[in-house]
Amino acid sequence: MNFRSDNEAPVAEPIMHALLEANQGFAESYGYDEYTQHLTERLTDLFEHWLEVIPLVTGTAANALAIAQTTPPYGAVYCHQSAHLNKDECGAPEFYSGGAKLEDLPGELGKLDAETLHTALAATGAHGEHENLPCCLSLTQSTESGTVYSIDEITALTRVAKQPQWHLACHMDGSRFANALVHLGCTPAEMTWKAGIDLLSLGATKNGAMLAEALVIFDPAYATEIRRRRKRAGQLVSKMRFVSAQMLAWLDDDLWLQLASHANALAAGFYQQMQAKVEFLFPVQANEAFLRLPEAVIAQLQEAGFAFHVWPGSTDVIRLVFSHATKPADCAQLVAHLNRLLP
Amino acid sequence: MNFRSDNEAPVAEPIMHALLEANQGFAESYGYDEYTQHLTERLTDLFEHWLEVIPLVTGTAANALAIAQTTPPYGAVYCHQSAHLNKDECGAPEFYSGGAKLEDLPGELGKLDAETLHTALAATGAHGEHENLPCCLSLTQSTESGTVYSIDEITALTRVAKQPQWHLACHMDGSRFANALVHLGCTPAEMTWKAGIDLLSLGATKNGAMLAEALVIFDPAYATEIRRRRKRAGQLVSKMRFVSAQMLAWLDDDLWLQLASHANALAAGFYQQMQAKVEFLFPVQANEAFLRLPEAVIAQLQEAGFAFHVWPGSTDVIRLVFSHATKPADCAQLVAHLNRLLP
Amino acid sequence: MNFRSDNEAPVAEPIMHALLEANQGFAESYGYDEYTQHLTERLTDLFEHWLEVIPLVTGTAANALAIAQTTPPYGAVYCHQSAHLNKDECGAPEFYSGGAKLEDLPGELGKLDAETLHTALAATGAHGEHENLPCCLSLTQSTESGTVYSIDEITALTRVAKQPQWHLACHMDGSRFANALVHLGCTPAEMTWKAGIDLLSLGATKNGAMLAEALVIFDPAYATEIRRRRKRAGQLVSKMRFVSAQMLAWLDDDLWLQLASHANALAAGFYQQMQAKVEFLFPVQANEAFLRLPEAVIAQLQEAGFAFHVWPGSTDVIRLVFSHATKPADCAQLVAHLNRLLP
Amino acid sequence: MNFRSDNEAPVAEPIMHALLEANQGFAESYGYDEYTQHLTERLTDLFEHWLEVIPLVTGTAANALAIAQTTPPYGAVYCHQSAHLNKDECGAPEFYSGGAKLEDLPGELGKLDAETLHTALAATGAHGEHENLPCCLSLTQSTESGTVYSIDEITALTRVAKQPQWHLACHMDGSRFANALVHLGCTPAEMTWKAGIDLLSLGATKNGAMLAEALVIFDPAYATEIRRRRKRAGQLVSKMRFVSAQMLAWLDDDLWLQLASHANALAAGFYQQMQAKVEFLFPVQANEAFLRLPEAVIAQLQEAGFAFHVWPGSTDVIRLVFSHATKPADCAQLVAHLNRLLP
Repeated sequence: MNFRSDNEAPVAEPIMHALLEANQGFAESYGYDEYTQHLTERLTDLFEHWLEVIPLVTGTAANALAIAQTTPPYGAVYCHQSAHLNKDECGAPEFYSGGAKLEDLPGELGKLDAETLHTALAATGAHGEHENLPCCLSLTQSTESGTVYSIDEITALTRVAKQPQWHLACHMDGSRFANALVHLGCTPAEMTWKAGIDLLSLGATKNGAMLAEALVIFDPAYATEIRRRRKRAGQLVSKMRFVSAQMLAWLDDDLWLQLASHANALAAGFYQQMQAKVEFLFPVQANEAFLRLPEAVIAQLQEAGFAFHVWPGSTDVIRLVFSHATKPADCAQLVAHLNRLLP
Repeated sequence: MNFRSDNEAPVAEPIMHALLEANQGFAESYGYDEYTQHLTERLTDLFEHWLEVIPLVTGTAANALAIAQTTPPYGAVYCHQSAHLNKDECGAPEFYSGGAKLEDLPGELGKLDAETLHTALAATGAHGEHENLPCCLSLTQSTESGTVYSIDEITALTRVAKQPQWHLACHMDGSRFANALVHLGCTPAEMTWKAGIDLLSLGATKNGAMLAEALVIFDPAYATEIRRRRKRAGQLVSKMRFVSAQMLAWLDDDLWLQLASHANALAAGFYQQMQAKVEFLFPVQANEAFLRLPEAVIAQLQEAGFAFHVWPGSTDVIRLVFSHATKPADCAQLVAHLNRLLP
Repeated sequence: MNFRSDNEAPVAEPIMHALLEANQGFAESYGYDEYTQHLTERLTDLFEHWLEVIPLVTGTAANALAIAQTTPPYGAVYCHQSAHLNKDECGAPEFYSGGAKLEDLPGELGKLDAETLHTALAATGAHGEHENLPCCLSLTQSTESGTVYSIDEITALTRVAKQPQWHLACHMDGSRFANALVHLGCTPAEMTWKAGIDLLSLGATKNGAMLAEALVIFDPAYATEIRRRRKRAGQLVSKMRFVSAQMLAWLDDDLWLQLASHANALAAGFYQQMQAKVEFLFPVQANEAFLRLPEAVIAQLQEAGFAFHVWPGSTDVIRLVFSHATKPADCAQLVAHLNRLLP
Repeated sequence: MNFRSDNEAPVAEPIMHALLEANQGFAESYGYDEYTQHLTERLTDLFEHWLEVIPLVTGTAANALAIAQTTPPYGAVYCHQSAHLNKDECGAPEFYSGGAKLEDLPGELGKLDAETLHTALAATGAHGEHENLPCCLSLTQSTESGTVYSIDEITALTRVAKQPQWHLACHMDGSRFANALVHLGCTPAEMTWKAGIDLLSLGATKNGAMLAEALVIFDPAYATEIRRRRKRAGQLVSKMRFVSAQMLAWLDDDLWLQLASHANALAAGFYQQMQAKVEFLFPVQANEAFLRLPEAVIAQLQEAGFAFHVWPGSTDVIRLVFSHATKPADCAQLVAHLNRLLP
């Protein structure tokens, strides 16, 4: 009964099937295949906007390329303290950008807020060339805390970021993009470029794919020579049809939304059932729940065969991740166990 | 009839099958799965030596990580002028190493020779801190010219490289490792660490896999913190079981050798049949042939539906690549056409 | 009446004189001159320890080279939030190290404390290769707030840093080293390697030199190939005798201590005279004072010809820097003005 | 009797005097002083063109900053094989640019020629994102071989470089700029922007200054955020007045031309006197001579107290450098000795 990570889930059947189908004869390499061409069209339709798609196999690569395209070595990226690119990528953004600085900001519920960002940006400039140049804002949607920015919140943040004296590029780390989308019930366009987002790390791997991520760029200004950057980063997959085919199958017939809805629904159900008894650190809005439990209870759950992460830096907080492949029966068992273990 | 690249070939059936099999339930992410553990054991047995395996999805990443692990920013890498890492990776080694220098050397048949290397190394040192420090030798096996180093040639080169005053790390770019192996008919150990190789980029993608490469490190000294470097390079695939499973299937029942033998045999057959009529730029020892043809003949072949690369920088040299999926019938047609077109 | 920065002060007479004296005929370049050789001996004696001296012309270069020598690209440096290398060097440490991360910590009076450091270090490790590796502790002495770490404080910090599970390199940014030294009244050895410091950025420029800084390395392990790093950073001054000669003259006859004592004494005198009337943000222990004043008073001081910085991010805090060349009469005038302007 | 390097020569008297004069009281730091402002005006007049001046203390820094401003990490710089930035800066251009590639080209007499450059550039592009993007041409004037490009030669090279399909930035490494200028007898404008040069590393140190170099940028497009790059490179000298004052004194009353003329004249005189007896590897056009001598003669000269470099990679080629401070009597002695030693 695995609640450890959506990265541990298997691949959804239709995506496996698409890989088999894509394996017909020869196809041009390095993204000149029909699948990749088709993916660009498909995403252009879906997002209702010009875009450039850079298929990749890790979210870290998508994030780091986005930073490198927007932030020169002497630049700074504004993000939440808990941002994956700040805490969990061993400095990939610094590497790809040639040593730019991440300015991490506090914020409740795992979210940045517009006022904090404004204050931080307003404090820049006085030191001239002695300080890094603000260049990029990066938001994670859904957040590392399992919460979801409303469209108004995103818009308020990008509005600050795009004030003419700063004109930051606005990046969204969407490794759990679909989970946020189904939570908000909005369109992909509304959650991205219509809300001021210029670049999106679009993640499919956590939501049912095998290895399929993409950097989606809505503003041609940020696409300049991205292909050379991808190549020199060792991120240009030769048989790219097999990445693009995954993402196409993931989008077909709203599979991505179905998979995310499944995961979100289990998370929400768990939240509703346990909310009265357990302290949740954040509202459960996507497919993750963070809860505080007595250490003895944590140990008993582990013994009972439930797998999850005890959150680093704590001994009494656990993270539960609900994936497209999580079984409702496993969730029911978890609820039952908890009810038994807690008074 | 595709002779353009082995990167354009489909995935071999047993490898597709292995992906389906690996897709059973949850598995630990980031390389802590059983497939990856098993791959390490499998390669340790195969190479008859301690080793660390870093599964990856591009050969560029394997090469660039090898350079970064062996060559500090102020170091230099010695390689052949035509080396893939020098010519075709848009500076990936420079990026990963933080700006090391590639010292490219000439050499017949796409190979470095020990004397040229010795002369180059002997000329270093006089400028002290004004010059880069020699740190790494990188060989491609089979070479970018479709030739294969003999074990004696490799040994002679690594012996120079490892002279105590230089003690270079010795890296092999084995994106077509299996093709060289079946040509020489030796063991993996003989072609690598027994011949002085410390790190190997082992490529399966060109030889039947979907996306499966690995950096194999034989000397623990070059493995220090490789995992952090991989992560910050955006190369840590979360669902790694699907990369490792490919490579395991590729090795099982000598599939890799069969696939490479098939490709090599077609290349060798073509060479034997056309050798009298056509100028080959290099002996055909692996699965590539470079030949000079009249431009009109090149055009007629293309019209007849043969796909191949006219070699950059020339108008009358073409490269033919024979892959695991190339059909003998296509080769026969190609020979027939050439015989018709050439007097 | 300049209280803006000790960087704006002129060069002390004996140092100018030394430059004239050093300008006799030809001398070997790139540090092979007698002045540089002599400087190494002189500092070895002074610090009572083996050391390697790397003469430089900016403190930023000294700091950034220290970071690069101790912290690989995947590493992290622990420093105070207000550290010059974190806030005022436009990312030089990130640049020189190839993208390492600065982990900035809070701390009262501009100082890190051992407990905060311990807590921060103890929280690392759980994420494995997903997080940067702790590699270096950097302290500024005297601090950016004009305070001075006691030897006990330094020792407590380096003791935490050097615990075997972390074994961080310990760096001291001593751009105002002499000011701290005369405040503590200890020996250079006591304030550095005896207290656990491995590398020191030793600054003379702010304390009377023209352009003379040095990276002093007490542990040979951190000196490896430092000369190549210096060269490739564009920091290898050809006519180095003129840098070393400055530093020799600065040390001769305790000139450096006299100059620092002069500056500190003026700062201390100002503090004593105004303490009752004005809010000082930090105790005045070296040659800087930070004080809160009504904005109107600030404006009146400026009109009266006093030059100083209004501290970035505030409108009512000013920094006063007292230099080796600051005249007691100017300080007296400042006190008189303040007494007149404040009730 | 030092013929080893102009870097070993002392500082010219008027420049030492200027340092003393500049040492009057306080002055704004970091380039906001009057000397630096005045230097910009002075060079603008001298070069008859808009320009931005970045005072520095090493030529390596000037070159490396020029490369970083013109060449992104995925770019390539075209230069002569013997270019200082290719051979003698331990990879500084690669460091500052974030890993760009130097494409070194052969050429007679230490000079690139337009046809070789054209051929090299025409061969690019076929590999798309797999190859580095041509971005910059760098010429050394006078060259590392002591020769001087004519204005026609420079113009022919920059014309190729600036063809619309390539539009390279054109950089001149002028560490011995004045020596070339007096050889050609042209204006600074004619040898730079009028001939297509966009950025100039202007060196004073080898020609009589203490530590004074400047990056001079003629095209605002290449000046973007150069100040942040300088700062993060640790190249922002705080007491910059002392660098700018050197350069002003160097330019005043045509001192720079007098010093260079002195050096060139001694070199030319030596060439004329020995030409019949000795093999010179290159025509002597600036202040350096490369000559082939029997090893025994080299040893005897050294014993007689003549200091010079035996050229790295050879045992029978020496380089003689004539500086502003070289005495005619020393040259006469050298000629006399050679005449005695050679039949």
